[in-house]
Amino acid sequence: MAMQKIFVANRGEIAVRILRAAKELGIATVQAVSAADETMLAARLADETAKIGPPHASKSYLNGDALIAAALETGCDAVHPGYGFLSENAAFAQKVEAAGMIFVGPKPETIARMGDKAVARREAQLAGVPTVPGSDGTVKDVAEAQAAAEAVGYPVMIKAAAGGGGRGIRITENAGELAALIPQASAEAKAAFGDGGLYLERFVRRARHVEVQVLGDGERAIHLYERECSLQRRRQKVWEEAPAACLSDAQREALCMSAVKLAERVNYRGAGTLEYLFDETTGEFFFIEMNTRIQVEHPVTEMVTGIDLVAWMIRIAGGEKLGLSQKDIRLRGHAVEARINAEDPSADFRPHPGTVSGLEVPGGMGVRFDTMLYPGYQVPPFYDSLLGKLIAHAETRVAAIARMARALGELKIEGLPTTVPLHLALTRADDVRRGTFHTNWLEAWLKGHPLAAERTEAGQSEAGKESR
Amino acid sequence: MAMQKIFVANRGEIAVRILRAAKELGIATVQAVSAADETMLAARLADETAKIGPPHASKSYLNGDALIAAALETGCDAVHPGYGFLSENAAFAQKVEAAGMIFVGPKPETIARMGDKAVARREAQLAGVPTVPGSDGTVKDVAEAQAAAEAVGYPVMIKAAAGGGGRGIRITENAGELAALIPQASAEAKAAFGDGGLYLERFVRRARHVEVQVLGDGERAIHLYERECSLQRRRQKVWEEAPAACLSDAQREALCMSAVKLAERVNYRGAGTLEYLFDETTGEFFFIEMNTRIQVEHPVTEMVTGIDLVAWMIRIAGGEKLGLSQKDIRLRGHAVEARINAEDPSADFRPHPGTVSGLEVPGGMGVRFDTMLYPGYQVPPFYDSLLGKLIAHAETRVAAIARMARALGELKIEGLPTTVPLHLALTRADDVRRGTFHTNWLEAWLKGHPLAAERTEAGQSEAGKESR
Repeated sequence: MAMQKIFVANRGEIAVRILRAAKELGIATVQAVSAADETMLAARLADETAKIGPPHASKSYLNGDALIAAALETGCDAVHPGYGFLSENAAFAQKVEAAGMIFVGPKPETIARMGDKAVARREAQLAGVPTVPGSDGTVKDVAEAQAAAEAVGYPVMIKAAAGGGGRGIRITENAGELAALIPQASAEAKAAFGDGGLYLERFVRRARHVEVQVLGDGERAIHLYERECSLQRRRQKVWEEAPAACLSDAQREALCMSAVKLAERVNYRGAGTLEYLFDETTGEFFFIEMNTRIQVEHPVTEMVTGIDLVAWMIRIAGGEKLGLSQKDIRLRGHAVEARINAEDPSADFRPHPGTVSGLEVPGGMGVRFDTMLYPGYQVPPFYDSLLGKLIAHAETRVAAIARMARALGELKIEGLPTTVPLHLALTRADDVRRGTFHTNWLEAWLKGHPLAAERTEAGQSEAGKESR
Repeated sequence: MAMQKIFVANRGEIAVRILRAAKELGIATVQAVSAADETMLAARLADETAKIGPPHASKSYLNGDALIAAALETGCDAVHPGYGFLSENAAFAQKVEAAGMIFVGPKPETIARMGDKAVARREAQLAGVPTVPGSDGTVKDVAEAQAAAEAVGYPVMIKAAAGGGGRGIRITENAGELAALIPQASAEAKAAFGDGGLYLERFVRRARHVEVQVLGDGERAIHLYERECSLQRRRQKVWEEAPAACLSDAQREALCMSAVKLAERVNYRGAGTLEYLFDETTGEFFFIEMNTRIQVEHPVTEMVTGIDLVAWMIRIAGGEKLGLSQKDIRLRGHAVEARINAEDPSADFRPHPGTVSGLEVPGGMGVRFDTMLYPGYQVPPFYDSLLGKLIAHAETRVAAIARMARALGELKIEGLPTTVPLHLALTRADDVRRGTFHTNWLEAWLKGHPLAAERTEAGQSEAGKESR
């Protein structure tokens, strides 16, 4: 079932990415557009556009029925969901298939299965993939908690079984403190959630976020090595790289092969990412969850492997077998990616839509800019603030960071503030240059950093002047 | 002797390329600017600029003394000549060294040695590298001509020893015709050049232009595989690729290793290119000449090998040893390059300077645009018409051409006509898609081709409308 016409059920830079891949494969394209997106770059690049509803995402990009109706109306035989929005919604995938179209992604049942964290954790354990050590369910008293903590290893986190969003979490280093905290935490959980049940989980103080890219055709899966995404702000990734600077070759091999085992166990189809927590003090890695879609940061993997992930997603969805074997995948050099957002770093990263009054993009060797911007584009206020991803690839990690600094210096986005000054500062930060960071590093570093000053120094001026 | 500050003795896109490499290596930069180039992109990107003279190249970019004086005045310790202009001028290289600066290129004596075609041919023969078979000097009569032709192999070219520029060349397929042509050609040569001497050379009817990239540090040399540049118009390369579609793996290995032998024989230092003629009917290749500088089309090699040629030139010139061995060089995928010129394909490619009133550059995976353009830039009328090089790299040759077509479709240069319509037409030409072309193919194909119509169809319109 070769694909003839693909419906892009997303917007922004990822819509542009999908359209480019489809165009290169000779597949016709229809771009979904909300009422706020009629002038976006993806709408200009697509063969056709289809209106799907009002600006608010709940009425457009999250409105599965409207998307499917538009895809059918325009004669599409496939739907690409991109990332975010409905990309991991099993019911939507099912509806697309029920309407007789191809969903470019895993089977709906795989999305559902891996979308349930508890199920995914169990699948990982069955595949022999390490998960974060913890108590086996809730602990009924101090003695049981102490025994579990002993088995799990200190420090441990005490979590409320009925809790969520990080609320009520306590961390302790020893059995004595644990004994004191348990009754206290249980009483609090009871008061807050109506359930005093507690469970324990190993606490990794300097965790690094690593993730493995996989590609499967439902029968066979391969990995495309890992990315590191430890530089985060409010749990949003800010800077990503491939490969991870913190892994030895042996750790890399073990990590990546564990991902293949899990992907093959669930007969994974398409592109997917397995997220892990890496404890660099012990060298252990623990599976956390799987994202059953393409990720924002996929280009760093494309740069170091030379493999076009979005094209392969489409080809596999169209019925092709995975025409790559593990030995075809070789790392070349190092790639770093900076997420350029419409946010004002000098004003606590407040999102700041506006009109792009001028645009100059960096070029040259090893530089890629995946963006939704064009000169004159009006960034609408309804969606996330990602404007583009600047990727730098070079022979070594040091050279990739130097290239990123050079490229950031050439990038000129006029008319609205962006996170370019943050990224310029990151290229100069010793911990970034040495690769010595963890998931809490960026927020701590930002506290002491005079980013507003950086900004002036970096000459990211036209935009800045306007907004300050 | 580490380099501190480099003088860029060139202009246009190659100056930008050099500045980027220097910046990434942490080396300060001074850009040479003629009176016509004060607003060029390289002048904006360099740390400093230095005026070197009036617009006409003979008074600026070809004025060695002015360049050296400017480099000394701005405290530079190295000079990068780029390509063209003084890049292969041994006397200039010598003067740079005499002034106590580093010339980023081979030793002056290597430039002189390889710049003399007869010497280079002899060096090649001594290195065991095949050269185009021909008579051993001039032939004195028909009998000697026939004996030589027999040894060389038909068809042969009869050339006047005192001639040049292709004048008076005759081609023949057999001994009978040769006997008739020899007296006639000799008389003509005598009349035209005052010398009736003739020599013979094998004629390759469907020659393909292949060239091997080498990198050496004066002691050791490696190759970075080959490029094919058979698509030419008036001996100017129009479209280049790496690797060459016409070579088998065994031919590739033999060709590339022959280049290493010659480069090591002359203790080559820096980046250089050995040009060959490839006869695809016999599978033979013949060395023609060596270019002792970086070439316009070097990015296709960078894309398929991942090696930064310009950075390595600078590092080696600064005294580093070649930190790469032959086994580090691996081909990945295929890259094609389109030279985008300020020429009007619908008006016999007349050069057409002007102001870039609008610019949108293509992005996404595997796309690189090395350009001197920015919005508002005024292309001066004094120099060559190259505006930039669009490079597309993908897993296969077919995918690279599809990517090139996609990227050309996204490229918008407004305000002046460009060769984009020619390149769009090339991406659709069967012979280009199949890789079945030779050095005379493009001119023959252009004769029958309605490029003006292509242009409108491709929507490369704003610029076109203005100029037609």
